[in-house]
Amino acid sequence: MGNLGTLYLLPCPISDETTPWEVLPAANKAVMDRLDYFIVENTRSARRFLSKAGIARPIDTLEFRELNEHTAAGREVEELVAPLLAGRSAGVISEAGVPGVADPGALVVEACHRRGIRVVPLVGPSSIILALMASGLNGQSFAFNGYLPVKPPERAQAIRRLERRAHGEGQAQLFIEAPYRNAKLVEQLLQVLAPQTRLTVAVDITAPGATIRTLPVGEWRRVALPEMQKRPAIFIIG
Amino acid sequence: MGNLGTLYLLPCPISDETTPWEVLPAANKAVMDRLDYFIVENTRSARRFLSKAGIARPIDTLEFRELNEHTAAGREVEELVAPLLAGRSAGVISEAGVPGVADPGALVVEACHRRGIRVVPLVGPSSIILALMASGLNGQSFAFNGYLPVKPPERAQAIRRLERRAHGEGQAQLFIEAPYRNAKLVEQLLQVLAPQTRLTVAVDITAPGATIRTLPVGEWRRVALPEMQKRPAIFIIG
Repeated sequence: MGNLGTLYLLPCPISDETTPWEVLPAANKAVMDRLDYFIVENTRSARRFLSKAGIARPIDTLEFRELNEHTAAGREVEELVAPLLAGRSAGVISEAGVPGVADPGALVVEACHRRGIRVVPLVGPSSIILALMASGLNGQSFAFNGYLPVKPPERAQAIRRLERRAHGEGQAQLFIEAPYRNAKLVEQLLQVLAPQTRLTVAVDITAPGATIRTLPVGEWRRVALPEMQKRPAIFIIG
Repeated sequence: MGNLGTLYLLPCPISDETTPWEVLPAANKAVMDRLDYFIVENTRSARRFLSKAGIARPIDTLEFRELNEHTAAGREVEELVAPLLAGRSAGVISEAGVPGVADPGALVVEACHRRGIRVVPLVGPSSIILALMASGLNGQSFAFNGYLPVKPPERAQAIRRLERRAHGEGQAQLFIEAPYRNAKLVEQLLQVLAPQTRLTVAVDITAPGATIRTLPVGEWRRVALPEMQKRPAIFIIG
């Protein structure tokens, strides 16, 4: 296996308001400097990240291939992995934060495990873990559920199911929403959840104006909500 | 609220084989340099971490108070938060990795939210997220379950329950074990799980000798297992 490449999972910032080295260990740069092949969710934002990070090689000499919901078919993933089988290492970069969690990067990771290719994750900002750390909710047991259904009746059902699991199993329940729907989601959360249920609203994590707050739903109904319009947020029911 | 302190959640390395600045953003140091009050899971390891990190203040001038399973009573948490109410900021440091997740740090975070004290999580290594990134399993939906029961019959039941949830809901199921019991746990996982169920074994994450591998259980039964004796590991059923 000595002649196989290594797949490095390269986190990038979550917020446009931070520079790479505010949220990434300097040691990541040594890895990034050595790579010339990148499997990315979006080429434009990956190039911008590597450029801001000040990596050693000129960006124009690097090879980028996209892996996202438009390209993620089985045959394409095989082609992405082929250079690793030939001994070339690759870096995976997602749109924001850590790759492989809630993005198609997981497909190339899976293909590497099937081939015995080594997979090395580097440290970086995960809005899921940062929100959980700062929530004060149960970090001994928690679940990330991605997006809830969009239609209000189905979404109300999903919210009630998560609340039952949070109370019944003591398992904190995390979920996200498209930023432009955050306000509608919070409105429904405050309608549907019981007053004593605790709700964390974490907005713009790692940005200078980040707000992370946990309150019982009954108190959330009485206070001003954080500004969430078009800002990335994570929600936790505990 | 301008005269309240801020609670900073300060990650530290997971592995003794890495230095702090291999796995932490350099920007964390600026925060750590300003603090003189630390709420820690273990004073000895927190002092060692701050010393290795080369923070600006002499370690002997800092105040440390412990928050762990022995001290985590309600009244004690109130005492820990009192300095923050008086305008002094504090850093929370757990035994390893990010504080507030699977450790008693969550209690002081919760107390701060109740008082309107700002909570700021800093970036660092989370073995949960790093294992998930490198697993290739479903990062769109996953749950961390902490420790499974110790007794084999109850543990077999728990394993089957997690496998049902992994298959039925497509939710990857993470769990941990005390390092000296890793080998016994894996032995039982290979007995109890179905051959096609995927199992990730992630050992010594961030250390130079880290191994992270995902295989169907049927294949795990045929290959040599990674060396796990007394090494921290994370397991994922997908």
